[in-house]
Amino acid sequence: MSDADTVMERCDILANESEEPDGITRPFASEAMRRAQDHVARWMHEAGMIVKRDNMGNLRGRYAGTGTGTLLLGSHLDSVRDAGRYDGPLGVMVALAAVRRLHDASRRLPFAIEVLAFADEEGLRFGSTYLGSRAVAGTFDALELEHTDAGGATMADAIRAFGGDPDRISEDREEARELVGYCEVHIEQGPVLEARGLPVGVVSAICGQNRFRISFRGEAGHAGTVPMESRRDALVVAAMYVVAVEYEARNRPGLVATVGDLHVPGGAANVIPGRAELSLDVRHPDDAVRLEACQELIAHAHTLAEGRHVSVEVRPLTENAAVVCSPRLVSLLSDAVKEAGQEVLAIPSGAGHDAVAISALTEVGMLFVRCKGGISHSPLESVETRDVAVAIEVLGGFLELLSRPT
Amino acid sequence: MSDADTVMERCDILANESEEPDGITRPFASEAMRRAQDHVARWMHEAGMIVKRDNMGNLRGRYAGTGTGTLLLGSHLDSVRDAGRYDGPLGVMVALAAVRRLHDASRRLPFAIEVLAFADEEGLRFGSTYLGSRAVAGTFDALELEHTDAGGATMADAIRAFGGDPDRISEDREEARELVGYCEVHIEQGPVLEARGLPVGVVSAICGQNRFRISFRGEAGHAGTVPMESRRDALVVAAMYVVAVEYEARNRPGLVATVGDLHVPGGAANVIPGRAELSLDVRHPDDAVRLEACQELIAHAHTLAEGRHVSVEVRPLTENAAVVCSPRLVSLLSDAVKEAGQEVLAIPSGAGHDAVAISALTEVGMLFVRCKGGISHSPLESVETRDVAVAIEVLGGFLELLSRPT
Repeated sequence: MSDADTVMERCDILANESEEPDGITRPFASEAMRRAQDHVARWMHEAGMIVKRDNMGNLRGRYAGTGTGTLLLGSHLDSVRDAGRYDGPLGVMVALAAVRRLHDASRRLPFAIEVLAFADEEGLRFGSTYLGSRAVAGTFDALELEHTDAGGATMADAIRAFGGDPDRISEDREEARELVGYCEVHIEQGPVLEARGLPVGVVSAICGQNRFRISFRGEAGHAGTVPMESRRDALVVAAMYVVAVEYEARNRPGLVATVGDLHVPGGAANVIPGRAELSLDVRHPDDAVRLEACQELIAHAHTLAEGRHVSVEVRPLTENAAVVCSPRLVSLLSDAVKEAGQEVLAIPSGAGHDAVAISALTEVGMLFVRCKGGISHSPLESVETRDVAVAIEVLGGFLELLSRPT
Repeated sequence: MSDADTVMERCDILANESEEPDGITRPFASEAMRRAQDHVARWMHEAGMIVKRDNMGNLRGRYAGTGTGTLLLGSHLDSVRDAGRYDGPLGVMVALAAVRRLHDASRRLPFAIEVLAFADEEGLRFGSTYLGSRAVAGTFDALELEHTDAGGATMADAIRAFGGDPDRISEDREEARELVGYCEVHIEQGPVLEARGLPVGVVSAICGQNRFRISFRGEAGHAGTVPMESRRDALVVAAMYVVAVEYEARNRPGLVATVGDLHVPGGAANVIPGRAELSLDVRHPDDAVRLEACQELIAHAHTLAEGRHVSVEVRPLTENAAVVCSPRLVSLLSDAVKEAGQEVLAIPSGAGHDAVAISALTEVGMLFVRCKGGISHSPLESVETRDVAVAIEVLGGFLELLSRPT
């Protein structure tokens, strides 16, 4: 069995560890997560690693090196509800495969390798973000320990029940001065590699992101009796805005802007909409471009509303800066892709990843693996074994390149 | 106290008869309706009328004439939930005021006048349309008797509890050959009279109407990872369609077309909409124009969808033909408006009225009364006493003109 076959089989094994009988749902600090970690801990041992679980519940396998530095590899083991089997686990399994090759060849690199299997990236249980990787980066805020899940359990309770000590999460932090960097393998979750016919891509940056809630308020009225020219239809303005957002995004290379939800409160077939509310999500790998686009999109909402005598309220919800991947790691990953006989494509990541949290600690790099139809967060998530084989080869090559004296 | 003051006071009295402590909610065959009818029956008696309640629960007051014919006047006494006080009751009260004047002057016209206070026009309780006036027109379908309200009572139960015999509703039908016509006074429920500075308007036709449910289906995806040019965003196409519907309606005089509701199933800020569903309501006083507009609007949905590689399903829900008001009654009402010293404006009704059902029985005419801001189906519904005075005068003049030998 090839290493890629093993990775695929292991992703299947982990897919069986779920809180729900049909489909994959593996929340933070759940029994399903404990069973998944039991498998992963065994595989880490088999790859010659020393295994421990930290207070946040991250599983950490350490493969000793000849020097003092540590390279971090990893991804997350938790999932969304009714998830696919590759978003998260694939990155951990590919890292383990690369370490296993070193172990089988009895090789030590000038740096230790720590494979991090993060306890929570998706935030399904507590609505959190990057819980596992923030503990490792030392940016976890202890106030979050009081957040409760749907059953009323606090995060502190959940951590304790899973075997951790919520008062000692600060001890989970890696020492930045000892780190060589962090590299994460992940499915692309988008269609670009598939469209370009490439098995892997080197992530150039993780997009910054803004989210807004935008409400248009016009005047409700009887759909039969108010002439068209007397209307102040909030939905018509919202619709013009949806079209304008798409137009704006199509005209700025690399920008994605999405109205993912639109709602007409009290909407009925025979009532002219007095209100329309929508969500706006804006992402770009370059913060300056993103911020300029946001300014223009907000100005556009006001201009459209004014032109139709409708009022508009723009409420900013979240804002995250872009994370630019380390030029050094990007360059090494690109060389490794080339050595694997593949075309190098640098692509930005529109989705967030643990690498965002780890970027507070050390330089980060990411390798994307092609996935079918760009589909993720769905049981339809699919990757090809031959692409996984390329990812293992590239990660192995990356380790070799990183080991060479500079 | 002027007759118009009396009408306003009586609308206030009826407004107190509600199934809910705050606001006006007066469903079919309710206790609130019974109390409202007790008032109206008393006022009918005072105006010299013989009063009866038919099997459907319509209250009918008959003022005898010198000849054999009968002119029908009327409107409805039921309401929507949290209604205004004029939509329906105003028409009954203005009719009573006109009859009261004849009675006070001890005058008989060559035809009898029957004032119909319909038991159900809004359909709040059983989701029906024109229940009261269809019984009078003889177009009520006995199968509807088995329909149930929110509490599980059948329409037959409700009719029996209100004192009617559900098996004898066919006896509620007026004899068409004896009828002179039907005239209904109603608030405009639109802003046209207010905008034109006119107290009343003569209805030329009641618009025909189509309703559709239109579903666009594209492809859901991650809002961060799917580039703009790879998307098949169902909401963007739906939004283009909302804008196109408004454009089309603005370019056809007299057409109103409304997307009153739009919904993104499973919509979320970070998901590209895979589906978008909307309602479309199209009305015009000329059936040919309406049908042509519907054809174009449906073709437009398909064209837009095809251009974006999105599928579309158009589901017709309802279709009602326009009712053209009787040229004879329109002419007499117009003359009466002129005699009252007012400018004559013929306007189509975008909303449906009992006159639609009665048009199956006899020729119909309608007089609209200006209402504030065009607002109806709301506690904010408002009319001016001086406009009501004009309506009483016009209706009285109409009766005189109709009495003249032709």
